[in-house]
Amino acid sequence: MASITANHPISGNPLISFRPKNPFLQTQTLFNFKPSNPKHSNSSFSIPIVRCSIRRRPEYTPNHIPDPNYVRIFDTTLRDGEQSPGATMTTKEKLDVARQLAKLGVDIIEAGFPASSEADLEAVKLIAKEVGNGVYEEGYVPVICGLARCNKRDIDKAWEAVKYAKKPRIHTFIATSEIHMNYKLKMSRDEVVEKARSMVAYARSIGCEDVEFSPEDAGRSDPEFLYHILGEVIKAGATTLNIPDTVGYTVPEEFGQLIAKIKANTPGVEDVIISTHCQNDLGLSTANTLAGACAGARQLEVTINGIGERAGNASLEEVVMALKCRGEQVLGGLYTGINTQHILMSSKMVEEYSGLHVQPHKAIVGANAFAHESGIHQDGMLKHKDTYEIISPEDIGLNRANESGIVLGKLSGRHALQAKMLELGYEIEGKELDDLFWRFKSVAEKKKKITDDDLIALMSDEVFQPQFVWQLQNVQVTCGSLGLSTATVKLIDADGQEHISCSVGTGPVDAAYKAVDLIVKVPVTLLEYSMNAVTQGIDAIASTRVLIRGENGHTSTHALTGETVHRTFSGTGADMDIVISSVRAYVGALNKMMSFRKLLAKNNKPEGSAVI
Amino acid sequence: MASITANHPISGNPLISFRPKNPFLQTQTLFNFKPSNPKHSNSSFSIPIVRCSIRRRPEYTPNHIPDPNYVRIFDTTLRDGEQSPGATMTTKEKLDVARQLAKLGVDIIEAGFPASSEADLEAVKLIAKEVGNGVYEEGYVPVICGLARCNKRDIDKAWEAVKYAKKPRIHTFIATSEIHMNYKLKMSRDEVVEKARSMVAYARSIGCEDVEFSPEDAGRSDPEFLYHILGEVIKAGATTLNIPDTVGYTVPEEFGQLIAKIKANTPGVEDVIISTHCQNDLGLSTANTLAGACAGARQLEVTINGIGERAGNASLEEVVMALKCRGEQVLGGLYTGINTQHILMSSKMVEEYSGLHVQPHKAIVGANAFAHESGIHQDGMLKHKDTYEIISPEDIGLNRANESGIVLGKLSGRHALQAKMLELGYEIEGKELDDLFWRFKSVAEKKKKITDDDLIALMSDEVFQPQFVWQLQNVQVTCGSLGLSTATVKLIDADGQEHISCSVGTGPVDAAYKAVDLIVKVPVTLLEYSMNAVTQGIDAIASTRVLIRGENGHTSTHALTGETVHRTFSGTGADMDIVISSVRAYVGALNKMMSFRKLLAKNNKPEGSAVI
Repeated sequence: MASITANHPISGNPLISFRPKNPFLQTQTLFNFKPSNPKHSNSSFSIPIVRCSIRRRPEYTPNHIPDPNYVRIFDTTLRDGEQSPGATMTTKEKLDVARQLAKLGVDIIEAGFPASSEADLEAVKLIAKEVGNGVYEEGYVPVICGLARCNKRDIDKAWEAVKYAKKPRIHTFIATSEIHMNYKLKMSRDEVVEKARSMVAYARSIGCEDVEFSPEDAGRSDPEFLYHILGEVIKAGATTLNIPDTVGYTVPEEFGQLIAKIKANTPGVEDVIISTHCQNDLGLSTANTLAGACAGARQLEVTINGIGERAGNASLEEVVMALKCRGEQVLGGLYTGINTQHILMSSKMVEEYSGLHVQPHKAIVGANAFAHESGIHQDGMLKHKDTYEIISPEDIGLNRANESGIVLGKLSGRHALQAKMLELGYEIEGKELDDLFWRFKSVAEKKKKITDDDLIALMSDEVFQPQFVWQLQNVQVTCGSLGLSTATVKLIDADGQEHISCSVGTGPVDAAYKAVDLIVKVPVTLLEYSMNAVTQGIDAIASTRVLIRGENGHTSTHALTGETVHRTFSGTGADMDIVISSVRAYVGALNKMMSFRKLLAKNNKPEGSAVI
Repeated sequence: MASITANHPISGNPLISFRPKNPFLQTQTLFNFKPSNPKHSNSSFSIPIVRCSIRRRPEYTPNHIPDPNYVRIFDTTLRDGEQSPGATMTTKEKLDVARQLAKLGVDIIEAGFPASSEADLEAVKLIAKEVGNGVYEEGYVPVICGLARCNKRDIDKAWEAVKYAKKPRIHTFIATSEIHMNYKLKMSRDEVVEKARSMVAYARSIGCEDVEFSPEDAGRSDPEFLYHILGEVIKAGATTLNIPDTVGYTVPEEFGQLIAKIKANTPGVEDVIISTHCQNDLGLSTANTLAGACAGARQLEVTINGIGERAGNASLEEVVMALKCRGEQVLGGLYTGINTQHILMSSKMVEEYSGLHVQPHKAIVGANAFAHESGIHQDGMLKHKDTYEIISPEDIGLNRANESGIVLGKLSGRHALQAKMLELGYEIEGKELDDLFWRFKSVAEKKKKITDDDLIALMSDEVFQPQFVWQLQNVQVTCGSLGLSTATVKLIDADGQEHISCSVGTGPVDAAYKAVDLIVKVPVTLLEYSMNAVTQGIDAIASTRVLIRGENGHTSTHALTGETVHRTFSGTGADMDIVISSVRAYVGALNKMMSFRKLLAKNNKPEGSAVI
């Protein structure tokens, strides 16, 4: 099979001349079914096996990986993901996500863009201190990374935040495509090279030994110029070179070629790690990322659920599962250190906090990804699940076994609830457990069968809530097509004071939100509102999500465009009554916004200290 | 740049030996920014230009395309998409989608699987008659295709349905992977070949001149066996050979190789069209499809929004826009006949009818795909939109110009509304216009600014509704955390009779749905419930979607597994009051289910005539 040439059916012209190019491909048993599916070694569904831990994660040195097949996963959910519309997270939420990313075994966590606002700086600092000093399995500690544009102030802010981590990294970038240099930077090529060189050197000089550099819009940059600037930043001390396809413009072969050419032509490239960062504008980010890895990139930048601006980034779960399922066979033996059993929980947490929902047919983590239209199995075919399932749900943490686990009823006690939540992957105790228990009891009284999904919804509602400023006590509504919708709301403030107000509106939610506004008196705009029933049946728990923007807005600086952006805040609420669930979500979003405000007030800084 | 070898930074071993393999790549100006973006030729935002029609669509002959660069788009939204969980559409809805696909310029519409149920057969027949005989721009008429397993009964049913079209096609398939042949078919290789050969010949013998054959699970089949069976069906008269990656298992290079090898090794392949059909389980379907096209496939099977079972199929919009944006430059000059300006409307219609929502960061059609976090443009950079935007929104039918188009207020008349709807892409008149007008008036009285999105939501609610059996007249609700939720509902039946009922429930929706159940008396299970505000602001219109399954279920046969599946029905409703919107959706879903029932009753057939 050295060379195969295909001809066009009509013209007879050769369409594509194929030569296997990856040396790993030569020895594989391509198209041979037998050894392909890792599931064959796991016939029991009740005992999930973490196959990823077969190989140990190599020790971390910034510019070197001892095992040539190991690929680092760099997660930028908290930076690139969080800057997407409406995805603003509070400091507590960011810390939760960072902890989850550490559980997942992400090699590098990009925790934020510290120069964008004081709130961002504080969040990155907290993550560096807490998560960047944790000790996880096998002595692994994640690298904590902060983004900085190529200027001293940004780099100082980034270092101020990440230096508390055991393994701190600064990630600095400047655009290198003609269109960006001309229209955004208004700088010449030489000026851009000098800026990049001097700022990488500056980051090293202040004590950071792990410095990543990105030539923004690399996908549309002149390759000769890329080799040059990358060579210069290597000399200046960069340890990782990240190649972003900023506008999601490339196709896989093209992006793979770009990585291969950079590896072939950049002076000194043998002393650094090459990284990919692929946007998804044409739906090709996962394929581009894998093409980059096959061409020699050993760090892949991804986000949970593929969130990010516009069409988002390559998604962690797709890239990691493709490497896990096909790495041995067709992707050069590449592997990652990700514990895939935490994928589903990570996906749910990020969906919850970012307010960016996942479509049912999203690969790996969508609700339908493992669902088959329920049917009568006529020929026992589905006993052999591999006929239509290439990944077992257990591999990503969807444990079917749990369905026959602990069953809760309305007489179940606090301890049973705690045990059940642990089974579902949540460790809770103290006040959180108390609050959840009372919510659980009130649902158990109304609903015969309490499912795992019900519990997870209540859990999200309780645990994923921001620190409260206002708390909903009661709401009462009259509405319908015959009369004016009227709502009465009772809220409790941080000092325990009760506040009651009523309002009319165009519908029950409008009326209730107006009543809340009369009490809270913070002008906001409701940007988005959505609701889902989390379980089947008419008596399901409804989970509501809202997105608001304060009229005296919180702002931060956008990393790439340099624009001042208005922060928006999401809130979620769960209840069997959709009006109550809607009000809980709204109060949650208000609390989130006010926590932001409080943090800034505490630091005695003006709101949203934007950087120009 | 004949050969570039990249070495691993540490080991020094060659990682990938790159040789440009596509002859088209040799002449391109890769990485050179200038000529890349087609938008450069379209500086005016107010006059959208349909660039796709620059080249004429070649004339249709089943097994031959006169222009070697033309790629056929085969849409299977109505077959593969519609069989995904909850995506059941009524005959009217299927006809609407088929008409929209014809507007879009899809070459082949796979309209259904006629043997799966009488309802499917009727729908395919109707589409063949109506859409398969329309005459569209440049004399184009879409091919109408029906799916059939490799047996005479299925093929007869398919022919019975599609034969009314000007260009009918039968698509038959049988599995060719060891795992499927052993566990599902329980047939030997020879038996499978004989079955395929004889059934393709049978389809030709009954008068169908356009026959497509698919070896199911081709991605996991022995390639030598594939060449053999494909060669046999070509001899038997197949005109298109479709290569499905049924389990979404392959990576792009591997799938491209498979297509190239089939083109190189299958006897007689020069007389047929090779097609791709890629599932998205690893998030690689778009890349795999493009790899197939680059390797010589000239038909691409896709669905709108990428819907389909599990993680769905390659999505039409991603594949088409990638070819449009990068076809000239890096994809061998390939092009399609799709009028991309209808993409957005097609996406919204399929989202509405299938009940499968699209995530905000979905490439091309997601709500954020063209949204940037709103910001203060500090340096005028965004005047040059190409810095971050590779596709202009107008290209897919998102017309920013409309914002300054006709503005409606509460004094606007019927004619202004009709003109506005036409501007938004909807042609309505008669009763539909009347109904919409009264809904519009009632919203206009409560809401100052009526946005395009408001109108589209009302339109969806009116026009995308199934024929009504029950109609909601009034609903009134009292609820809240203090008391028992109580709802009163007044419905009107098909004969104009009023029915009133009341019920209590765990929340306002539960109460209202129970009141509806007391009137309608058809036992159903509510499977899913979701709601979205379609515009910003607290007084937005809320759009609700529900999914139900009748307890005396409608069934059909699943094309691939052969299982009997229970049909589920979605309904949508829009109103400023979330309770009213919820009840409208529920009544809509009940009507959809009962329309299905009526059709079957009319044909005097038992419900859900499943085929074994």
